[in-house]
Amino acid sequence: MSLRVGVIGGGQLARMMIAPAVELGIDIRVLAEAEGMSASLAATAVGDYRDAETVLAFARDVDVITFDHEHVPQPVLRALVDAGVAVHPGPDALRFAQDKLVMRARLAEIGAPQPDWAAVHDAAQLQAFLDDHGGRAVVKTPRGGYDGKGVRVVASADEADDWFADFAGEPILVEELVSFRRELAQQVARRPSGEMVPYPVVETVQRDGVCSEVFAPAPRASERLVEVAARLAMQIAEGLGVTGMLAVELFETTDERILVNELAMRPHNSGHWTQDGAVTSQFEQHLRAVLDLPLGDPSPVAEAAVMVNILGGPQGEAMTDRIAAAAAEHPSAKIHTYGKEPRPGRKVGHVNAVGDLDAAAYTARAAAAFFD
Amino acid sequence: MSLRVGVIGGGQLARMMIAPAVELGIDIRVLAEAEGMSASLAATAVGDYRDAETVLAFARDVDVITFDHEHVPQPVLRALVDAGVAVHPGPDALRFAQDKLVMRARLAEIGAPQPDWAAVHDAAQLQAFLDDHGGRAVVKTPRGGYDGKGVRVVASADEADDWFADFAGEPILVEELVSFRRELAQQVARRPSGEMVPYPVVETVQRDGVCSEVFAPAPRASERLVEVAARLAMQIAEGLGVTGMLAVELFETTDERILVNELAMRPHNSGHWTQDGAVTSQFEQHLRAVLDLPLGDPSPVAEAAVMVNILGGPQGEAMTDRIAAAAAEHPSAKIHTYGKEPRPGRKVGHVNAVGDLDAAAYTARAAAAFFD
Repeated sequence: MSLRVGVIGGGQLARMMIAPAVELGIDIRVLAEAEGMSASLAATAVGDYRDAETVLAFARDVDVITFDHEHVPQPVLRALVDAGVAVHPGPDALRFAQDKLVMRARLAEIGAPQPDWAAVHDAAQLQAFLDDHGGRAVVKTPRGGYDGKGVRVVASADEADDWFADFAGEPILVEELVSFRRELAQQVARRPSGEMVPYPVVETVQRDGVCSEVFAPAPRASERLVEVAARLAMQIAEGLGVTGMLAVELFETTDERILVNELAMRPHNSGHWTQDGAVTSQFEQHLRAVLDLPLGDPSPVAEAAVMVNILGGPQGEAMTDRIAAAAAEHPSAKIHTYGKEPRPGRKVGHVNAVGDLDAAAYTARAAAAFFD
Repeated sequence: MSLRVGVIGGGQLARMMIAPAVELGIDIRVLAEAEGMSASLAATAVGDYRDAETVLAFARDVDVITFDHEHVPQPVLRALVDAGVAVHPGPDALRFAQDKLVMRARLAEIGAPQPDWAAVHDAAQLQAFLDDHGGRAVVKTPRGGYDGKGVRVVASADEADDWFADFAGEPILVEELVSFRRELAQQVARRPSGEMVPYPVVETVQRDGVCSEVFAPAPRASERLVEVAARLAMQIAEGLGVTGMLAVELFETTDERILVNELAMRPHNSGHWTQDGAVTSQFEQHLRAVLDLPLGDPSPVAEAAVMVNILGGPQGEAMTDRIAAAAAEHPSAKIHTYGKEPRPGRKVGHVNAVGDLDAAAYTARAAAAFFD
């Protein structure tokens, strides 16, 4: 009998687990939100991940449940655990990914470096934070944000009035506006039995709050930075009880500190380069980790890897034509598509290239530009 | 609409096309011989590939038909072509892979270097060939041989009596017993529109007529050898009208010539190293080629890649335990399994490793040894 992994959510992260699952002989099954989703090839069920009965039925014949996203409600996660299902990452860890205030409080407890922050209940408290932090700050809804949604830079307290109304007395998160040199991301895999393997720290570039490019390993990173970032991610994985892949999004400040921006407890856009640029891809590593199999070698296979997202992109047959055109000009570009209907700004695929940094960046960007 | 590829045959070669198909956004569908085969994840039909009706029904909604093996009978292939289905490689090319006498005759026509050979109808003709070639030779059944089956070294004509009887008046193939230094394999991809991309020539090691190890690129290969092998494979791909991946198995003789041993018109065991050791794997390249998409970069990503087959291997849960044990000791080993019931000597998976040649060979062999 093969090992059986059940993935909740049929998006591109589940889709990209299929390839390593097939190679390793892991039986991968997906609970998709609808027909025709990115991971439909492995979908054995379609249903609502917020419904405990649906999820329990899906989980009946698998060795472990894991996730394409962090949105499965805590009561559903608890029901799985109560039914004896192995769930990785587990509900206790996922709480920290589901609520940014809970995450900030926990990171403070374990002493992880992060921007100044506060839980603010009203405009007066927000104004006080602004007054203490140079008049500008970042406000975030504690739940439901992603890809730049639920995040806003404000210079006056009334700019968050709608969120105070929406959250009806619950606090929202305010953070110091960090003066950063660049953004980094540090991934680490952790097994339930404790083994941890960090990946090289990478540089990420955001456009309109959405990841657009990743450079791996992070260019011009000192040995100390590489070491500090890896240790920090391991400290967080352990401190928050994360199993599977953890991505720690970081600010590298102008005064050479690193601060935790966000966490993701699953394979992450900042790790897509590993599909073509590392001995073990983050998707294979996630499967190994959640199954408590020994972790793979995270070493890069080339001097550098560059990932460029395909955002938006053309529809239907036009997409096929663009793949052909990009492939014709750039035979070394690795094109990954998600089988999603394109919408402006939506991530529908990405391009990886490996080699020396300049050549990889040129190839990945030039190939991705065919999809504009 | 995605491009749709229909693969006839549900073995490991079809299975290993799934990963690149998913990443490139190609809709892959497999006609499997039975339930639960290696490529079952992508199986949309189960049936007999010798039955034209079954195959025509399977081919109805795909852009191209390709193969996990070369055994689809010519009348079935012709029925596909007559129905307007794109078939790659096509029937004319597959004839040369299906009948070794037809292949030898065609290679002679195009002037490809090969061992001395003859079509012999009876023991007297075989004896004459033996007398001309030092008293020993290799006899082969023209059809149905693979992995050492249908091949026999003989020193006297009566050792082929059973085959003369089986083939009832049809000739069998006899070949000079080549004094070779080592065996090589040269792969090339060719699109219907003509573009060809050769891979680096590799060294293959056979045990009991079955491929056991591959070293890529072939160690200590002169520039001239690399060039000659690539050109030869391109000459054959063109001369035989092959589309998709072609593998040319070669002897490197003690007097430094190369001679064509066998051909395979599909992804081939000698190219499994490309999954982890080349920018474009042979499985992705085959899909690109048969869809007439631009071909990918065949360059190695590391100094060397070594592939070691897993032959036989343990059953069921024991297999999972061995994967875990091998992975624990060798984090950089890339383990690929075929989801097949193990039988002694049966190929049930392989291990790739990349790096410098010695380290890669050590890792691949040591990890594969866990499955003995």
